[in-house]
Amino acid sequence: MRIALGVEYNGSHFSGWQRQTNAKSVQQTLEQAISKVADAMTFVQAAGRTDTGVHATEQVVHFDCDNTRELKAWIMGVNSYLPNSVSVLWAKHVDEQFHARFSAKSRRYRYVIYQHATRPALLDGLLTWQYANIDLGKMQNAAKHLVGTHDFTSYRAVACQAKDPTRTVYELNLSQRNEFIFMDIRANGFLHHMVRNIAGVLISIGKNEQHEDWTLEVLENCDRTLGGITAPAAGLYLVKVQYDEKYGLNEKIRWPAITAI
Amino acid sequence: MRIALGVEYNGSHFSGWQRQTNAKSVQQTLEQAISKVADAMTFVQAAGRTDTGVHATEQVVHFDCDNTRELKAWIMGVNSYLPNSVSVLWAKHVDEQFHARFSAKSRRYRYVIYQHATRPALLDGLLTWQYANIDLGKMQNAAKHLVGTHDFTSYRAVACQAKDPTRTVYELNLSQRNEFIFMDIRANGFLHHMVRNIAGVLISIGKNEQHEDWTLEVLENCDRTLGGITAPAAGLYLVKVQYDEKYGLNEKIRWPAITAI
Repeated sequence: MRIALGVEYNGSHFSGWQRQTNAKSVQQTLEQAISKVADAMTFVQAAGRTDTGVHATEQVVHFDCDNTRELKAWIMGVNSYLPNSVSVLWAKHVDEQFHARFSAKSRRYRYVIYQHATRPALLDGLLTWQYANIDLGKMQNAAKHLVGTHDFTSYRAVACQAKDPTRTVYELNLSQRNEFIFMDIRANGFLHHMVRNIAGVLISIGKNEQHEDWTLEVLENCDRTLGGITAPAAGLYLVKVQYDEKYGLNEKIRWPAITAI
Repeated sequence: MRIALGVEYNGSHFSGWQRQTNAKSVQQTLEQAISKVADAMTFVQAAGRTDTGVHATEQVVHFDCDNTRELKAWIMGVNSYLPNSVSVLWAKHVDEQFHARFSAKSRRYRYVIYQHATRPALLDGLLTWQYANIDLGKMQNAAKHLVGTHDFTSYRAVACQAKDPTRTVYELNLSQRNEFIFMDIRANGFLHHMVRNIAGVLISIGKNEQHEDWTLEVLENCDRTLGGITAPAAGLYLVKVQYDEKYGLNEKIRWPAITAI
């Protein structure tokens, strides 16, 4: 039978999601814990393969297991084998048609910028620090150019292996609460480094290093080398993966619990 | 001349504030960085000697230095020698009468409880996790008994060395935002483990293990062994140290940037 899990993790402690030979990945860590509970070697598929240092408030994975376990064993049992930096949030039996990655209709990321004169100590690794002043209004205007269906070649890593660079951005919102600036983006899918490259371009615009329409210029150039810097991984959160209602997965967004009050 | 600093730190990375022979303390880490900028061995005095694992959004320290430096050197220069988990927020010249500890009129701590079915991964070490349901109203009623001037013998560590167990609690407020419960306490001073022992008693009451007036019973017993458990250090933040206005230190409260939105 097929089981889906919601998983929270602090990416600072891992070399990204994907299993690797010589580095600690979230995937391998999770697979080892699940395999113990399943009493069988188990492999998982994730909705989004996050990079080194990127966090998830709710990654979604699925796996197949012939050994029957209560759902709470897939939560509490697996958690007992996981390090403190990873936690299973929920478990659900899903249809065999369900695939964590290919059934996803959209993915939502949040990028958190800490605009402050001195660097963060308490939330080190969980924020991207900017000591320069940032013009939120400019970022908001610049963001409008990226909403919709576009060829995002300029916003993907040179090493990105996706065949088609076209993606549809449904939402790209910038907001601010005291010293925290949030970039919220939802799209049908993301190219490699796409969120961080969009954040890099928007931050340059917010810092007045570039004009408001630079997002559009970069987009139209279709050339990554004419884009901006890739913003740091710290501060990036995979927040929600949305599926068809028929799968009955939770629709509530699990925002990172980091903000000013 | 005497200089005061505001300092933020993540206590998870340290064996408490106070300098020790065989463990890494915030005090020693900070003194080493200041000594490099001062070009002289420098010792600091802090407003509150936080325990292992306890955080500070704004600890206040002072030190004396004969070598003149610009204030920004005491911020940016010192920060360049500090690890990521400690950061100087501000620096100010203060009167020789000023003492970070003895001039303090009151101290404010926040205790953050995460009430959730599964343990926190992203903010591990920055929260105290409770999977049981908590009755906020009961905690609020129970807290009222502790406001005012009392003998807090039952709420201090057995090893506490303070001569007088009397303290005045000016405020003790409980509030909730989604899965986060905040205990905010302000007093003229705190005995060893006093905040965590109050949190321990209030959490037991919130979980219905004890009745609402148990805070008062424990208080009146004047016996630590009849009190509750000491709540964990994770989740405890030194938030503000208040001084007389004449010292011109910032009055704004720097709340931990951890909450639900």
